[in-house]
Amino acid sequence: MSMGTLYGVGLGPGAADLMSVRADRLVRNAAHLAYFRKAGRPGQARRIVEGMLRADVQEHAMEYPVTTEIPLSDPRYNEALSQFYAEATEHLRGVLSAGSDVVVLCEGDPFFYGSFMHLHSRLQGIAPVEVVPGITGMSGAWTATGQPVTWGDDVLTVLMATLPEEVLRDRITATDALVVMKIGRNMAKLRRALQAAGRLDAAWLVEHAQMPQERVMPLRDSGDRVPYFSIVIIHGQGRRP
Amino acid sequence: MSMGTLYGVGLGPGAADLMSVRADRLVRNAAHLAYFRKAGRPGQARRIVEGMLRADVQEHAMEYPVTTEIPLSDPRYNEALSQFYAEATEHLRGVLSAGSDVVVLCEGDPFFYGSFMHLHSRLQGIAPVEVVPGITGMSGAWTATGQPVTWGDDVLTVLMATLPEEVLRDRITATDALVVMKIGRNMAKLRRALQAAGRLDAAWLVEHAQMPQERVMPLRDSGDRVPYFSIVIIHGQGRRP
Repeated sequence: MSMGTLYGVGLGPGAADLMSVRADRLVRNAAHLAYFRKAGRPGQARRIVEGMLRADVQEHAMEYPVTTEIPLSDPRYNEALSQFYAEATEHLRGVLSAGSDVVVLCEGDPFFYGSFMHLHSRLQGIAPVEVVPGITGMSGAWTATGQPVTWGDDVLTVLMATLPEEVLRDRITATDALVVMKIGRNMAKLRRALQAAGRLDAAWLVEHAQMPQERVMPLRDSGDRVPYFSIVIIHGQGRRP
Repeated sequence: MSMGTLYGVGLGPGAADLMSVRADRLVRNAAHLAYFRKAGRPGQARRIVEGMLRADVQEHAMEYPVTTEIPLSDPRYNEALSQFYAEATEHLRGVLSAGSDVVVLCEGDPFFYGSFMHLHSRLQGIAPVEVVPGITGMSGAWTATGQPVTWGDDVLTVLMATLPEEVLRDRITATDALVVMKIGRNMAKLRRALQAAGRLDAAWLVEHAQMPQERVMPLRDSGDRVPYFSIVIIHGQGRRP
């Protein structure tokens, strides 16, 4: 029997109608639907597609063994995730081997800092893979600010707030436009880096971009407790005829 | 009479079914449709929506007075474009003032290096504006390479090839993952900058991402004559459990 196809489907930033027409069609027709989530939570990806699924869909929830309980720098973090991705891969390989296609839900864009990439790297060459790009969370965030993020020749830098404080400071100093993601518990560090770079007053915080609970505010007006789905934006100021 | 709403609608990278469900609905229902194009050409944005429009749609083609005939550095370039955007704004303001909504087609994402931003800056505060984010051309390009663009803590830098060669070289040296756009006539310069940064062999060229004529190749295998819709990608090599 020939292997089914693994679809990595970008769902976009959060609103169901910001998924692409192609993604919408794949999700509505899926017989096997897989998605990541934190144990005991419904999961953001699954929430986006609520009400769109076939009555007979088979769901494959892949529950992270850890999220923020263990620091990234602890070797146990990498070990736990590595084993988790290996098990998820084996499970999906079983479904694909039976000839069934699997649609994997991906928040944002599958190839942009996503968990799907860890399945893709383990299953490419074993099963056919098709990736449907999505609107990134950062596009959702800068759209929410109501202002363009880049003009003319602006340099855009995308940073993860998990980087060391001095790396953040130097990169923020050197760029025109800025996006920072993976903020969560790193907000206080990020704020110090923005301050040291002299850019704090230009920074916007967008929480839950393009979701019902979206909030947009100057970063200086926010506290250091922010939801996981938070993105910081600094708009470029480049050439504009 | 109340002003109509100006919609800036992201079409995504080029395939019609990569536009969002929200964009698809707005385009199909539009009574007034506006788009930029080079004089004498059908225009890429207009081509994407071919076959989707109302029979009675009123089209407003906005034709650039110059594209690459005058260098960016020549003051006449800025003057010509400034006058062009002012005239386009006046024209659309007339339609909006009559109470009609206008859907402006935007390749990629409207707030990411797009021409729509020049209408937005002139019409915000005059008419209600709604922006629908889109899948960026760069998402389309890295998806076409078949490999994720960013992992873990990778820093992503987005550059315009119109920047000076030594700026390109230094930025390319300093980043993990890279996207370069606005390549066109700047390919030879960009190639020298990649070589000087020691990254030429890691670079991919994607022409017409997600369009029927899509081509993906290692940059070292390409010539210096590339189409306007070309994007260079270097994939990050960050943490992967």
